Amino acid sequence: MALITSVLSIRNLFVLSLALNVSLILRTMYEREQSHHWLTLETQKGQAVQKTRLALSPTSSSSAATTQVDTQDGGEKILNLARGDPTMFEKYWQQMGDKATVVIPGWQHISYFSDVTNICWFLEPKFAKEVVRVHKAVGNAVTEGRHIVVGTGSSQLYLAALFALSAQDLPEPVSVVSEAPYYSSYPSMTDCLKSGLYKWMGDARSFNKEGAYIELVTSPNNPDGHIRRSVVNRIEGILVHDLAYYWPQYTPISSPADHDLMLFTVSKSTGHAGMRIGWALVKDREIARRMTEFIELNTIGVSKDSQLRAAKILEVISDSSERAGSSAEGESFFEFSYNLMSERWKLLREAVEHSRSFSLPEFRPGFCTFLNRVSESQPAFAWMKCERDIEDCEGFLQGHKIFTRGGKHFGVGTEYVRISMLDRDDNFHLLVKRLSAIHI
Amino acid sequence: MALITSVLSIRNLFVLSLALNVSLILRTMYEREQSHHWLTLETQKGQAVQKTRLALSPTSSSSAATTQVDTQDGGEKILNLARGDPTMFEKYWQQMGDKATVVIPGWQHISYFSDVTNICWFLEPKFAKEVVRVHKAVGNAVTEGRHIVVGTGSSQLYLAALFALSAQDLPEPVSVVSEAPYYSSYPSMTDCLKSGLYKWMGDARSFNKEGAYIELVTSPNNPDGHIRRSVVNRIEGILVHDLAYYWPQYTPISSPADHDLMLFTVSKSTGHAGMRIGWALVKDREIARRMTEFIELNTIGVSKDSQLRAAKILEVISDSSERAGSSAEGESFFEFSYNLMSERWKLLREAVEHSRSFSLPEFRPGFCTFLNRVSESQPAFAWMKCERDIEDCEGFLQGHKIFTRGGKHFGVGTEYVRISMLDRDDNFHLLVKRLSAIHI
Repeated sequence: MALITSVLSIRNLFVLSLALNVSLILRTMYEREQSHHWLTLETQKGQAVQKTRLALSPTSSSSAATTQVDTQDGGEKILNLARGDPTMFEKYWQQMGDKATVVIPGWQHISYFSDVTNICWFLEPKFAKEVVRVHKAVGNAVTEGRHIVVGTGSSQLYLAALFALSAQDLPEPVSVVSEAPYYSSYPSMTDCLKSGLYKWMGDARSFNKEGAYIELVTSPNNPDGHIRRSVVNRIEGILVHDLAYYWPQYTPISSPADHDLMLFTVSKSTGHAGMRIGWALVKDREIARRMTEFIELNTIGVSKDSQLRAAKILEVISDSSERAGSSAEGESFFEFSYNLMSERWKLLREAVEHSRSFSLPEFRPGFCTFLNRVSESQPAFAWMKCERDIEDCEGFLQGHKIFTRGGKHFGVGTEYVRISMLDRDDNFHLLVKRLSAIHI
Repeated sequence: MALITSVLSIRNLFVLSLALNVSLILRTMYEREQSHHWLTLETQKGQAVQKTRLALSPTSSSSAATTQVDTQDGGEKILNLARGDPTMFEKYWQQMGDKATVVIPGWQHISYFSDVTNICWFLEPKFAKEVVRVHKAVGNAVTEGRHIVVGTGSSQLYLAALFALSAQDLPEPVSVVSEAPYYSSYPSMTDCLKSGLYKWMGDARSFNKEGAYIELVTSPNNPDGHIRRSVVNRIEGILVHDLAYYWPQYTPISSPADHDLMLFTVSKSTGHAGMRIGWALVKDREIARRMTEFIELNTIGVSKDSQLRAAKILEVISDSSERAGSSAEGESFFEFSYNLMSERWKLLREAVEHSRSFSLPEFRPGFCTFLNRVSESQPAFAWMKCERDIEDCEGFLQGHKIFTRGGKHFGVGTEYVRISMLDRDDNFHLLVKRLSAIHI
């Protein structure tokens, strides 16, 4: 023992610890460089390491050491709310029991093809039928005179739209823009292959290049929840409307959306992110054909199993919406989700008010034609601003073991963060408890 | 009536008919231009129109009018064997009954994530386990020391591999090559987005550009079924092995494949094309991470439902392989499939011999370590050559209502066609009957 203490003095241990810190910081920097997207394990690890660094550094302007930390939960659990994983909805589907179960025998749906008479030949007719039905039940989109194109999530449909809307023979790529703050994955998804067809050009507000362009209109917007319209408004513009959040639990449904190209996804409407199912409603036949062509070249169609499961899930939602109020048949999906979001936003606003360190966007209530009453905007993400001279809001919250996505990913300042409101109950309640206890 | 005949004389009708012909031909040409790939309905329609044109035209060198047509089936049914839709396997899965059925409750697998401790965070552990098990049971690939990356079919994994293997900072795109005849979708999949990272450069045999390149080695090869090795063999080369057909029903398994990056898919191994599930076995951790990053940017993961169903299907196959011979437990999947392919190749060779208008590749039998006996090569596609001065084999067979894919799509001459051997029984038997009856 005496030998060990003489060899490993406190000084030695300190040097060892410093070396470990340097190695961890270098690893963080390396991983940040390697990873420019939002979901990889690497990013999570990188954040975990950076969090440690921030919490340890006394010189950091956003050090947790200067604030009071809530310790009722031990303060040890990492809350990863950087992504919008919609696990909040599990509870509803558990209540539904067998109603939403899908059974697929081994010999069914073997073929590549679903319906060779449809432009989108890999679209399952059952799924298409339920898409039309749910839009009719909710009243959030016009489906008449539209082609439905199914995609492996709306991500694939976004890429398919870029392909379909780009001319193959232009001397330079078409510009792709969106008003900031915009969905953080748009830039990397658009530019990852350095396509000669299209190129990300950033904030639509500052876009002034001549010629053709594609403008992405996300409404309600990810990250800030506001209702959006196009801002460039030039004749050469083509619009893509990403309506992933245009559902009654998030925003008042004012009228059926009626745009040329609209994107939807089950991830945010029903909560089934793991299915990877989205759909596009497309007015122009040739655009629908080109989108189908892209998905064919990309993945030769879309999982039949997930389309069938999505059809079943949408069927249960439409059933529950059409007989809303009849408690014997189970609660309406949108009533359940609206009430849960309402409760969460109330708790979040109380926590933020108590803390006085942050601010949140304000929304005006509106009449919702689906709920048939005035309803609130209660977005899937909280777009929160750090007040009181905290410049790096993401880093600051990391010091409190709350992982969020910082404003720079969305094309704006680092004083903003986006926080998922769709996690499981225990994580959400831990979030409001921690935020509430932060007083700068 | 007298009025009608005077207004619509034979000459008028002829002009009308000619106008219709021109319109049909223009439509065909338009659709051929618009569609450079293999599955769209448009292509099928285009072929249908072209077929009509060929059958009607007395000047066509490949006119059906010059040959005897089998009319026992009425000769009317269009046989679309241009694609490799593996519906042949339905029969086996029907025999399996409930054993291969998957049941998924509505509240399960909601999250984006499957296993955050895995580089490929959207890989379902059950699916990964069954991939390792089936390779061990069959002995066709080394899985030890490999990362598994799941993809939406092997198409997505091919694109993920190109992304992962391309350097982001090269002044020009890396060359992508494969020995002709090569898989007909490689060129369009590689070049559809005009990527600045990689570029299709055609036949590996004539490739002589300096610098880095990616060589695709498909073995057994699609379309011709031959065992392949890399042909460029330069130090700057990176190899991708597409082993979609390296299964006992198609080729003798000589030893476990042991390459750096190997691609597999359920479409051709189990027949479940509609699932869109493939997997890559990847030696290098960083390559596996980059492939995962691509799939994240492309589709934010891969359908959990299809991964779970694929796990169940692979489980049934491994079970049936491990207890082969025990009839009480049902026939082994690979024995069933081998025997069916064997019967089909026998019938096809007999038909071709009877016709004397075509030729097929020859293969030497080899010892199959899985079947533990000498077995035959019996590819998923027949790579058939038209003899006797038929220059346009695809067009010639279209005249007999047999749709195939012509040689030029595979980088070789139009005297070749690729015919799917994996269609349902009735279509396959119609094919051999029609081929057998063609005598030029």
